[in-house]
Amino acid sequence: MAYDLVYNSFSAAERKTIEEGAFKPEVDFFTKDLKSWFDLIHNHGVWACAGVGIAGIATNNKHYVDMALYGTEKNGKGGFIAQMDGLFSPDGYYTEGPYYVRYAILPYYLFANALDHAKPELKIFEHRNSILQKALLAGLQQTNTNGTFFPINDALKEKDYTSNELVTAIDIAWKVYGADKGLLTISKKQDKVLLSKGGASIAAAIATAKNIPTLYPYKTIEFTDGNKGDEGGVSLLRNGTGNKLSTLIYKYTSHGLSHGHFDKLNINLFDKGNEILTDYGSARFIGVEQKYGGRYLPENKEYASQTIAHNTIVVDESSQFNGDEKVAEKFHAEKLFSSITSDAVQVVAAKEDNAYKNVHLQRTLYMLQLPDGRKIIADIFNAVSATEHQYDLPFQYNGNLISTNFKYAAHTKAQETLGTKNGYQFLWKEAEAMVKNNLAQFTFLNNRTYYSVSSLLQDSAQLFFTRTGANDPNFNLRREPAYIIRKKGTSQSFINVVEIHGSFDPIMEYSSDAYTAVQSIKLLHNDDDITIAAIIIAGKELLIAQCNKDFKAQSKHTFKNITWTGPYTVLYNETRLQ
Amino acid sequence: MAYDLVYNSFSAAERKTIEEGAFKPEVDFFTKDLKSWFDLIHNHGVWACAGVGIAGIATNNKHYVDMALYGTEKNGKGGFIAQMDGLFSPDGYYTEGPYYVRYAILPYYLFANALDHAKPELKIFEHRNSILQKALLAGLQQTNTNGTFFPINDALKEKDYTSNELVTAIDIAWKVYGADKGLLTISKKQDKVLLSKGGASIAAAIATAKNIPTLYPYKTIEFTDGNKGDEGGVSLLRNGTGNKLSTLIYKYTSHGLSHGHFDKLNINLFDKGNEILTDYGSARFIGVEQKYGGRYLPENKEYASQTIAHNTIVVDESSQFNGDEKVAEKFHAEKLFSSITSDAVQVVAAKEDNAYKNVHLQRTLYMLQLPDGRKIIADIFNAVSATEHQYDLPFQYNGNLISTNFKYAAHTKAQETLGTKNGYQFLWKEAEAMVKNNLAQFTFLNNRTYYSVSSLLQDSAQLFFTRTGANDPNFNLRREPAYIIRKKGTSQSFINVVEIHGSFDPIMEYSSDAYTAVQSIKLLHNDDDITIAAIIIAGKELLIAQCNKDFKAQSKHTFKNITWTGPYTVLYNETRLQ
Repeated sequence: MAYDLVYNSFSAAERKTIEEGAFKPEVDFFTKDLKSWFDLIHNHGVWACAGVGIAGIATNNKHYVDMALYGTEKNGKGGFIAQMDGLFSPDGYYTEGPYYVRYAILPYYLFANALDHAKPELKIFEHRNSILQKALLAGLQQTNTNGTFFPINDALKEKDYTSNELVTAIDIAWKVYGADKGLLTISKKQDKVLLSKGGASIAAAIATAKNIPTLYPYKTIEFTDGNKGDEGGVSLLRNGTGNKLSTLIYKYTSHGLSHGHFDKLNINLFDKGNEILTDYGSARFIGVEQKYGGRYLPENKEYASQTIAHNTIVVDESSQFNGDEKVAEKFHAEKLFSSITSDAVQVVAAKEDNAYKNVHLQRTLYMLQLPDGRKIIADIFNAVSATEHQYDLPFQYNGNLISTNFKYAAHTKAQETLGTKNGYQFLWKEAEAMVKNNLAQFTFLNNRTYYSVSSLLQDSAQLFFTRTGANDPNFNLRREPAYIIRKKGTSQSFINVVEIHGSFDPIMEYSSDAYTAVQSIKLLHNDDDITIAAIIIAGKELLIAQCNKDFKAQSKHTFKNITWTGPYTVLYNETRLQ
Repeated sequence: MAYDLVYNSFSAAERKTIEEGAFKPEVDFFTKDLKSWFDLIHNHGVWACAGVGIAGIATNNKHYVDMALYGTEKNGKGGFIAQMDGLFSPDGYYTEGPYYVRYAILPYYLFANALDHAKPELKIFEHRNSILQKALLAGLQQTNTNGTFFPINDALKEKDYTSNELVTAIDIAWKVYGADKGLLTISKKQDKVLLSKGGASIAAAIATAKNIPTLYPYKTIEFTDGNKGDEGGVSLLRNGTGNKLSTLIYKYTSHGLSHGHFDKLNINLFDKGNEILTDYGSARFIGVEQKYGGRYLPENKEYASQTIAHNTIVVDESSQFNGDEKVAEKFHAEKLFSSITSDAVQVVAAKEDNAYKNVHLQRTLYMLQLPDGRKIIADIFNAVSATEHQYDLPFQYNGNLISTNFKYAAHTKAQETLGTKNGYQFLWKEAEAMVKNNLAQFTFLNNRTYYSVSSLLQDSAQLFFTRTGANDPNFNLRREPAYIIRKKGTSQSFINVVEIHGSFDPIMEYSSDAYTAVQSIKLLHNDDDITIAAIIIAGKELLIAQCNKDFKAQSKHTFKNITWTGPYTVLYNETRLQ
């Protein structure tokens, strides 16, 4: 908005012509014709308020500024302040997810910056304990080592923190919140700055700084969701340094407005800069006219946002909340406990009771670094129901299938779809197996690392290898594989161990630790109160004992010869991992 | 071979124990038990000769050295000299292709280096006009900007010039052939050197050099095949600078021994560092025990080496030479003419008469840089036969289908294979179309660039979109798409125009020139002597007139109002492109 720069060179009559002829119709359109949209607590509303507010500041129009700050009714139910209060959790998580905070952060920072000049008494950048700083830093923590935002909800996977919105936000943040070494790393990769005090200052800092780290200072971190921080959240469990960083994303948020996916209790895994257990992100070729005008493709709702496109349980081939956004918006998952202070054991438990009627879903994830260096994710996912259901747990994986320890029937001459609705119609069934009372193991290779999923299959289970691309006449979907575990019954437990192991070097032609070290998984006990699993890894026992209801830190528990205090214990070779 | 380093510290008796006890059995095994293999003119023979020869030098055993140099019979029919004479063309092309010269160059350089010390009178590095230098430089020209070798014949796509074999060859070449700025670029990326004079020297050069280019000095270049240079060859047509380099590979070589593919008149396209029109390379997970012991997978012969896995005509769903290596080894394609001195027009014509009985295949490729900057490849591929055949011309493409200008039927609910043998059994038929008398256009997006294939379809043609993965129960093949043009009849012409156009930026969210500029293709004339095609591109006419038999530079030709001298002319907007 450059009107302020030329303001003084206009006569009062000229100003009136411009302000009444150009700005007023636009502001009226936003605040009258689109009144309810303007007052929405949604990223579109942020853009609208920023526009009207900045126009108000540039034209000394208090009415505009007040509507922008407090909504068309100026009662604070809409407007910028309500948007700052409503769309972020207290720790800065943006309810639509990281891809959309990347988008919304531009009007947030631009209008806040204008307000900071025009109405410094508002102390807008300090509002809500500096929520805009928290929002920026939370967004940056939710990126891969290559700078792309984690593909939570509708998200284009290519989008990274070099986008213009982040250039603006970071340069302003540098000025208002002070120097921050992590921002230097990003600004350097952005390779451009704003022509502003913040931009000049960060450019000068880059020019003189020595040894700017190549990676943002990523850490294990958890965010709550909901403006009070009481609507679930997301945990980013990290392990490893530099380019060897592994990140397990565990999502138990609220729905995330219109761009939310039906993916409660979903996990994703990034390792060494690659997405390993994947989220499809959004189905969209942004700005490509031939592809539905560059908008979200129909497959975005029909596939990408459905539960089966994720890594969480699908009950009875239907999506969570029956795929109804309005219903989904009313609920959120709930974190039960977490412990993230030790590299050896990071653990998060969460539950979801509303996604499927009369089915209680509870998933506890352990990201473990064993004393011998092995990286193991133990995943205890209980579906509890009094009635019979079909439960599908997909692992969307990125890589080449290397081996399985079970026999399967491959559909080699003709292929059909896995199902007919709720996203299943997009999956070709490449192979399937029926496994009884066994440990099913599946190893794949991504780039230079092996990954194995070891699954305890009590009684019987069906296994599927699928690939997207069915019912896709316009070739709108990428062809991506998944490994799906299907169980039927009332309550069912999915005990899976994901191991990151070995290395493959196609240039030096060697392969090491290409086999998973997991030898067996046993569920020693599982009821509403306690789950105990024993996993044999390279001859040593990893024993996990967890509470499913009592998460108090001081509670003491005993089961047979195992005793522990608090919600869980992890023993490796009979010694507590901590 | 470190025996020479400790030689002086042994007594004569100790030497005898080692030489008779360790070396002799090995040399005997190679030269007696595996006598015919040792004398083969093949990369395995090079390794064997280098081993025996170096052992001979280290132990002052003339017999070993002579066998290594001239074969077990010492008659020069086998041995290292015959291998230097037989496996390279006079300009350094290695008959197995660039992936295998990468492999064989290690024993070539190691043994030559030892010979250079032990028998300097041989002047081994000068042999055949410094064939080992030519071999190295030819291999390096056959790489992508990221250093990976072009996937001609059996080739792992990840293999690049940082492999140990190339470290050795480059450091030795630096010493014996002198400084070469291009080698500095590569040695710097290798980030290691030999502990030798050459290694120390190149390390010193890197330490003191300023502005070592990040890319090898790639250029348009042609190589002959065959030890006399009369067995066809390969043309690398390049255009553009730096990371915007485009490379069209046109292969009309001999078969290439046991690692050769049935791919006469095949093309591949690399652009901006990405493989756009692809070659599957080899089906192999090297060194991965679970995958067939890490060896070449059965699918390597069954799919990857078959003609349908390439970008050249398949006649009657059978591979060239009926997929019989022994027959294929007897023949080679033949270059008819080329002109590669102008960036505006690079043209190569070649023919193949033996791959299919009574079918003459002749393909002329034009890589054009139009005055307005457009990059266009015009591809005139004539199949001439007196009898009826089915001709399939695949474009193995790497990218997402963006649009077609024709309607097709997609196999959305069930999928079947395109065929049952010769590689066709591995292709799922995703969609198909029947097009009559039309220009068929197909656009795909790779990374940030659009690519369009515009095809003149006279009379009628079938079009297929396929994907690998059928009949692949072990998940040994990558899932890759192809666009296949099928024509039936006696002689048929395939006139295709590939345009590299536009850009897509998912971070800045813009897309430009997303539509091909090609508006029409007309075949004005086509017979045994002359082909004339008119292509309308953004309203201007690109006219190509070529001779199909008379390639003499001084011959004058007239067709209607078009006159030209030599084998071809290209007119753009009525002006000759040159």
